[in-house]
This record gives sequence, structure tokens and C-alpha cells, in this order.
Amino acid sequence: MHATVMHGPGDVRFERIEDPKILKPTDAIIQLSATCICGSDLWPYRSEGPFEQPMHMGHEYCGVVVEVGSEVRNVRPGQFVVGSFVLSDNTCPHCSFGYPSSCEQREFMTGAQAPYARVPLADGTLVATEEMPTSEQIPHMLAVSDVLGTGWYAAEAAGVREGSTAVVVGDGAVGLMGVLSAKLMGAERIIAMSRHESRQKLARDYGATHIVAARGEEGIGEVMEITDGIGADAVLECVGLQQSMDQAMGVCRPGGAVGFVGVPHEVNFTGEGLFFAQKRLFGGPAPVRRYLPDLMGRVLRGEIAPGRVFDQTLPLERVAEGYAAMDERRAIKTMLTV
Amino acid sequence: MHATVMHGPGDVRFERIEDPKILKPTDAIIQLSATCICGSDLWPYRSEGPFEQPMHMGHEYCGVVVEVGSEVRNVRPGQFVVGSFVLSDNTCPHCSFGYPSSCEQREFMTGAQAPYARVPLADGTLVATEEMPTSEQIPHMLAVSDVLGTGWYAAEAAGVREGSTAVVVGDGAVGLMGVLSAKLMGAERIIAMSRHESRQKLARDYGATHIVAARGEEGIGEVMEITDGIGADAVLECVGLQQSMDQAMGVCRPGGAVGFVGVPHEVNFTGEGLFFAQKRLFGGPAPVRRYLPDLMGRVLRGEIAPGRVFDQTLPLERVAEGYAAMDERRAIKTMLTV
Repeated sequence: MHATVMHGPGDVRFERIEDPKILKPTDAIIQLSATCICGSDLWPYRSEGPFEQPMHMGHEYCGVVVEVGSEVRNVRPGQFVVGSFVLSDNTCPHCSFGYPSSCEQREFMTGAQAPYARVPLADGTLVATEEMPTSEQIPHMLAVSDVLGTGWYAAEAAGVREGSTAVVVGDGAVGLMGVLSAKLMGAERIIAMSRHESRQKLARDYGATHIVAARGEEGIGEVMEITDGIGADAVLECVGLQQSMDQAMGVCRPGGAVGFVGVPHEVNFTGEGLFFAQKRLFGGPAPVRRYLPDLMGRVLRGEIAPGRVFDQTLPLERVAEGYAAMDERRAIKTMLTV
Repeated sequence: MHATVMHGPGDVRFERIEDPKILKPTDAIIQLSATCICGSDLWPYRSEGPFEQPMHMGHEYCGVVVEVGSEVRNVRPGQFVVGSFVLSDNTCPHCSFGYPSSCEQREFMTGAQAPYARVPLADGTLVATEEMPTSEQIPHMLAVSDVLGTGWYAAEAAGVREGSTAVVVGDGAVGLMGVLSAKLMGAERIIAMSRHESRQKLARDYGATHIVAARGEEGIGEVMEITDGIGADAVLECVGLQQSMDQAMGVCRPGGAVGFVGVPHEVNFTGEGLFFAQKRLFGGPAPVRRYLPDLMGRVLRGEIAPGRVFDQTLPLERVAEGYAAMDERRAIKTMLTV
């Protein structure tokens, strides 16, 4: 088959590779219904360092099972499935405690920007639907696999509850999903920090009550004004840079919480700073597997439309154009049809 | 009066200073029933840097009100009171949210290692008892003012609940109070990391079910063994050094929490490290004012004996001996009688 391979920064190719096959008895092979490009795929795309080896890209996926290993019990060929970008056994103590993204057998999904993909730990990772979703539902189901689950985790880690004042730092796809999640969790005020008009509009559609376009100290000042000088009890940091983290900490009230889900790049904290700020901090790779049944159900019942974050759709063979569009911020998030 | 003044590292003197007086209409003057030396007093005592000016020491206190400013309404002369080491108005949004230790008017108490002390923001800071405590109750009431309240906060910030497995890093007075607090909050297993025999014994008396004497990787390994390789869901970091913080993070399970209450000295975190560890982090100066009514009530009803951490009692004029004893770890905590 042809699939997406990154050979170096800025060098994404759709080229012939070997078809995926069952390597372990716990594997499944799925035929992708759709796949997409993640903001985190842009880190190596923009990186300056040399690559050790070509990378098979893609970790967001949904599709139909075509083959399973001999030990797979929970899914069978012909079923439509969604999986988390983190592969987990869903039985270890960390999974049982609610953190499949820290599973003792944790692996990270790769190779999903392709017509077919191997999913290790299929029993723990994949959740099947009873019926085949409609083609209209596919983008929303795909969004559950990572970007919605990650926004949901940001809101959960930030402690959003009924009546909360939430701030979302970052207007990428995850930030927008953070807005939607905060809304679903009952936040009363949702302040989206966003500079781009099209993203501001989507943020408002998803439930943002306020938009703050300014960044840094000025942005913090505007949030403080909106919150009567108090700050927000729940802050979702959806970028992963020092500036965005400083902004998140700056708008959080003492005793409040910052949930951070952007993989941090050169972000540092001092113990003393955290101590006197007196703000909770919790982040990590989202435990999406725990959320899948609930979020897939909301999509299937038509309650949420997370797939609206895909503002560009391309056929898989034009994946390189999608990377370029997201890199240049011409697209929020690019879906790839298979 | 004579009171405790630190002139430089290792140089604590009991010397004549001006009597405290009402400076603002919200002040109270109390006559100390007892006072004590805090582990945090040892930081400047051990510091290498020069002092800008002599420091009036002491921030843990209980005693009898002798005078109040014209705006004080909640306490009156003759009442026995306990206050927090953090002065707060108890009415601002941060106080109302449960964090008087981040009060908009926050000040830190000083000058309590003395026969008399000025307490600013008296209405928000002090809690009076209905009756005069017995002399036997005084050490326990004194402990509530900081060291028990701080241990309690460590347990709360670490999310201790019924059935928790808790690890307490640090066997100083705060760590021992953390053990007691975790026990009172229902922890099922409490692992105290302690190298000193007398402290181990007190930890057991307060509810520790396991003692781990080893530190660093070896100590982490022993805790992991006790917890079947899983780690603890609640970790109380009661020291404030990089080594103790690394130990705390190392014994915490993914999705668990580290509550840290030792003022961090040159402790650093990377965002990436916190992200992939997936552990909650929350610390700061303890919101003792919020706990005072509950914890004072437990003392008065004879349910807890936090004052047992005072293993040395000296008359106030011998305060310098107390500093030396705590500095050399000959005493866990020194109470000063007035």
C-alpha cells in the first residue's frame, strides 16, 4: 500500500511501504475510514534536528477491523472501531485507576495516515460500535480518537465543573475541543484566548462566552478584568510552550487548576514559583480510552459535532499538502479521506 | 520586653525590643501561652548570605488577647485564640474559595517567639475558644497554628481519602503531622519515609503502617515493592529539596497526586517530565485558617495529640539552645514556654 512517511523536517511523502500485518496475537489490522494530521505531527515537521529514520506518521484513527490476532476477543472483523492514540491493555492497575495513557504496556500509535494500520493491544485499545456509522458521523468519530479526548482531559484535569469559570489557552483543534468539553461539563463562563477570527467563531459555536485576543501580560490583564480580578478556577493549557504556560498560570486563581495537554517543549517550573502561586498542575497524554464509550455515544446520538474542527479535507495521497496547510496555519486541522 | 531576634546565620539572641503595639485598627495584641521554633526558621539560620537587618522570629502562636484595634469585632481581650501563620482577612474571594493563605491582603506572621505579639488582620486570622484550654492542651493547640495545619494541607493537596495508600516524604514535625492527617482522612496504608528511630516511633503512633528508611532510588524501590509495583495515590512532600521531591514523584502512581508543603529550595520541574509522569502537583503555604475550627475542636475534644511533636521544651529565654538543637537534629521541634 501507499502511506505517509516523514523523511525529515518538511519532507512528508506518500509512498509505497509494506502492508501492515499481524505481528503479535494481540494485534488487529483496521481499514481506515478516515484519518487526520495532528498538531503534534508538526513538531518533527518543524524540527531542525536530523531524523534517525523515516517515520510512519498518523495516530488518530477510526475504521473497520479486517483481521485480528489469535488472542483478540473484544473486537472482530467487520466491526467499526475507534481507538485511542495511546495503546493500552485496559487491565493493568494504571488502566484500572483511570489512566490507560500510563498503561504498564503503553505504546503510542503510529502509521495511521494510511489505508490500513496495525493496532497493537487491540482488546484494550479499540471500542466497537453496534452499527456502522453514517459517512456524516465519520469525522466526529475520528475526532474522538485524540483531539476531543485530549480537550476533554484538559477540562477534567483543570477540574471544570458546573458553574466554573474556565480559560482555554490555545485555539488549535485541541483548544477548541477544550472549549466544547468545558461547556459539556457545565462551565458557566468560558474565556477562549484566540487571535484568529475563524477559530474565534468556532470557539463561540462550541460555547465560549468571551474571547481574548491579546497574549502575555496584556492577555492576562484582560482575563483578570473579566473575572473581577480573581482569575479562573479552571485553566486548560493546550499549546505546550513556556509563554502559553505562563499565560495559563497567570490567569488561574489560587486554589484553581491548570490542566495541560500540549506536549511541553522547553517548559520549566520552579518549585518556589509553584508553591507561592498555589495553583494545581496536572497534565499528560490524555486517557482517551476511558472516555471513548461516553464520547462515541454522544457523537452517535448527535449531541456533539467535534468533527467541525476539520476545516480542510484532502484525499490521503495529498497528505503533504495538509501538513503544509497546518504548518502555515491555513488549516486548523486536516482530515484525510481514504 | 525581651524577644527572639536573628542577627545572622546561627546568631539568635533573646534581647530587649520595643513592646508590640496596635499599629492598625485591625490589629490585636496577644499574650503568648506558648510558642515554638519552625523548621522553616532554620533556613535563615543555616543560610550563608548576609542579613539585611535583624529578623524578629516566630510565626506559630496561641495565647490570650490583651488588646484589640478599634475595628476588631470577632475577638476581644481575655479570649484564648489560635491563629494561622498566614494572616488573612477571611473575606476576600481567595479566602472564600478556601485559600486564606493566598488572601489578597496576605501577610506572614512574625515576632511570635516573644511574650507578646501583634497579630494584624485579627478578625480574619484568629479563632477564639469558648473556654480557656487546660495547660495540657496548650502544646496541641499551638501545633494547630502551623505544623498540624500544614501536614493536613499536604494530605488534602495529595488527595488522601478513605482507603488511600499514602507516602509521607520527610520525618520532620510537618511530615509527622502529615502521617496523623492522612490517618484521620482514612488512609489505609501510610508509608513514612524516615531514618530516625524516635521519629519512626512517633510516625507509627500517629498511624504509619510501614516505615522506609532508605532514600533516593533505593527508597523508591522499597515503596514500589510495598505497593506491588504500583506506587501510592497520595504523596505528601514535607521537605522542600530536589531529592525529596524526586522521591515523592518517584513513589506516586500515574493519576496520583503529590501535595508539597516544604518551601521548595532550588527545586525544579520540566514540563515534559511532569507531562509524561502524569502526576498531579499542588502545594503552597497551608490555608490553616480554613482548618482551625475543625482542628481546634479535635484537640479540645481530646481526639488528637499533635503536640507530641514537641520533644523539647525550653523557657523562651533559652530560645537559642532550641535553634541549635533543631539544627543539629537533636530535637524534632522545640516548644518555648513563656
